[in-house]
Amino acid sequence: MTLTTSSAAPVTLTDTGLEVLLPGGKTAYFNNYWLRDNCPTSFDSQTRERVFDIFHLEAAPRPRRAEVVEGALEIAWDGENHTSRYPLEWLASYAEGKRRPDPSDLPRRAWFADHYPNVARFRQADLMADKAKVAEWLKALIVEGVALVTDMPDSDEALTDLVKLMGHVRPTFFGEYFDVMTHIEPTNLAYTAKALELHTDTPAEDMAPGVQFLHCRANSVEGGANLFLDGVAVANDFRELYPEDFKLLAETEVPFYCEHDTYDVRSRQRVIELDAHGEVSGVTISQHMADVFDLPQDVLDRYYPAFCRFGRMLQSAKYLMRFRINAGECIVFDNHRIVHGREAYSATSGARYLRGTYADRGEMRSTYRALTSEGRFK
Amino acid sequence: MTLTTSSAAPVTLTDTGLEVLLPGGKTAYFNNYWLRDNCPTSFDSQTRERVFDIFHLEAAPRPRRAEVVEGALEIAWDGENHTSRYPLEWLASYAEGKRRPDPSDLPRRAWFADHYPNVARFRQADLMADKAKVAEWLKALIVEGVALVTDMPDSDEALTDLVKLMGHVRPTFFGEYFDVMTHIEPTNLAYTAKALELHTDTPAEDMAPGVQFLHCRANSVEGGANLFLDGVAVANDFRELYPEDFKLLAETEVPFYCEHDTYDVRSRQRVIELDAHGEVSGVTISQHMADVFDLPQDVLDRYYPAFCRFGRMLQSAKYLMRFRINAGECIVFDNHRIVHGREAYSATSGARYLRGTYADRGEMRSTYRALTSEGRFK
Repeated sequence: MTLTTSSAAPVTLTDTGLEVLLPGGKTAYFNNYWLRDNCPTSFDSQTRERVFDIFHLEAAPRPRRAEVVEGALEIAWDGENHTSRYPLEWLASYAEGKRRPDPSDLPRRAWFADHYPNVARFRQADLMADKAKVAEWLKALIVEGVALVTDMPDSDEALTDLVKLMGHVRPTFFGEYFDVMTHIEPTNLAYTAKALELHTDTPAEDMAPGVQFLHCRANSVEGGANLFLDGVAVANDFRELYPEDFKLLAETEVPFYCEHDTYDVRSRQRVIELDAHGEVSGVTISQHMADVFDLPQDVLDRYYPAFCRFGRMLQSAKYLMRFRINAGECIVFDNHRIVHGREAYSATSGARYLRGTYADRGEMRSTYRALTSEGRFK
Repeated sequence: MTLTTSSAAPVTLTDTGLEVLLPGGKTAYFNNYWLRDNCPTSFDSQTRERVFDIFHLEAAPRPRRAEVVEGALEIAWDGENHTSRYPLEWLASYAEGKRRPDPSDLPRRAWFADHYPNVARFRQADLMADKAKVAEWLKALIVEGVALVTDMPDSDEALTDLVKLMGHVRPTFFGEYFDVMTHIEPTNLAYTAKALELHTDTPAEDMAPGVQFLHCRANSVEGGANLFLDGVAVANDFRELYPEDFKLLAETEVPFYCEHDTYDVRSRQRVIELDAHGEVSGVTISQHMADVFDLPQDVLDRYYPAFCRFGRMLQSAKYLMRFRINAGECIVFDNHRIVHGREAYSATSGARYLRGTYADRGEMRSTYRALTSEGRFK
């Protein structure tokens, strides 16, 4: 048995804050502004908002008295009739300056061409009835980026009901829903029977919608196989094989556009997207929406070979999951991660109708957190 | 009169591209990949999409023959039965690697406490009837960040119709609309009669909605004055007075949260937001939604004094526009730029009802571009 002993004083004042002896024997420093700002009374348990406004302080906060009492730091503040009380365990969780833990921060699991039989599957009615199933579904979407919802009723409402389990329908510049079928005057290649190159959707938006839904209402045509791949799997391999190219694609913004009579949407995106941990969280690929790259030509000398190397890797057999979506299924996927396309089909051989829409990744994660964790105020 | 003369060859091949003599006598370099990718035939005039996919090229593109013919560069490509023809004027516009001009890239005009009489005003019926008025309205929103729409019908539809002139209603995690009035079980301080500290809305979203609409349906209470200020005006002054503090606020991400029974939204934002030119484009301020800052305490030693200095500046009389919104008016503003709040009111002294909603800045700019410029395919 090891005894933790310490000769440090429980609390020592410095010019800007306090040194506090924490459970376990380590001493940690806390800034006075931070302490005053985060007094437990700063948060209202009914509205669950922070209700203290530090901008109204007239001078830098200073403790008049600070001591440890029954496992908590107590501070009486100078010039205020206010005492704050912080449990030491709570202070310890902020001592190292680490980000607050996030239940939705699950590691991504890359997948490859043979993934189709293992795609997570959920019956729509089960999701509607059971919040625990919804949590499983969202977890699959966070970890693998794709899931199939089966036994979907053949109605517009079925799709909307499904979206509402994770958030709200997120309209894009072309509306709340889109109907993938052959249109007479197509504004988009998706609305023809032609092959669709591998892509992510609506990259020209400031922030392209994060979760895509494709509800298959009919699919009796010849051809039109679905092509899906995990951009994270490809980008992780690319990072290992071509680290310099990876860096270029993760750091260089290239322009995207989407233009028609009533819209002219433009943005700049990085082809490889990294998360806060520096891990690949997604990719943005779309030849259809790629604008003329308006970068210096000497940058393009390096960028284009890297871009084409990555693009060819996306098309390699190792990654490409090929399957046929059936009427009554809805494929749901992370639109910043999963790259999708389809083979050409014969428009006269039958009917093919997919109704699509989007939701936000942020709302999906919000719902996942609310379903799986206690939160701060529950 | 000066004659521009040049002894340079019209086209010179290099290992990776071409040197081309442009009108005016300057020679510029263009990369082969870039040239091949942007052959005018790469773009389809019906769907207005790029239809060429450079990932399918088997080798790096190389010209077999390149010459200038009647003001255009003509390239016959090696290994392909394809000739590209690029007008020299078009090439010249990409020669310096400058970003494609954007009609919506208008300089922002900062405003101060005395701005209320000069706020751009538009009658709702005029906007509904006249696209030129819509363009003026969007220009005011881009340049000044705020505009008033008057003579609004007293209906839910009036607000929706107004939003649709610039884009789509952008739902947040709490839905498509919000009703600012006193609620019996408030989930938010806005739903009480209390004062509302100066803030921007929903900072806990990945990307907080860019344009906010507040349609006043009733306002007969005592008190409740509206407080609006231009975050750009404050941040520009702050940059001049406290450059080190400015840098901290523009570079450090701090956490925001919004948590209730069914949601737990989290994000990290920079208090001062810069655009592609390094100019201040907005601010994110919300004591209500500020999470406990989970940064190293020695960073907080520098961050908090800067943050409080900026927060106090926001509240100074130089910037604060104080007015009373009237029934039938809708104030529309850039939610990343304009900081708003209100004074407390007496809930029993009359009725106060504002219906709010959001749209996207990207869609607003898209609509502005489509209304004011020819575009590439028109």
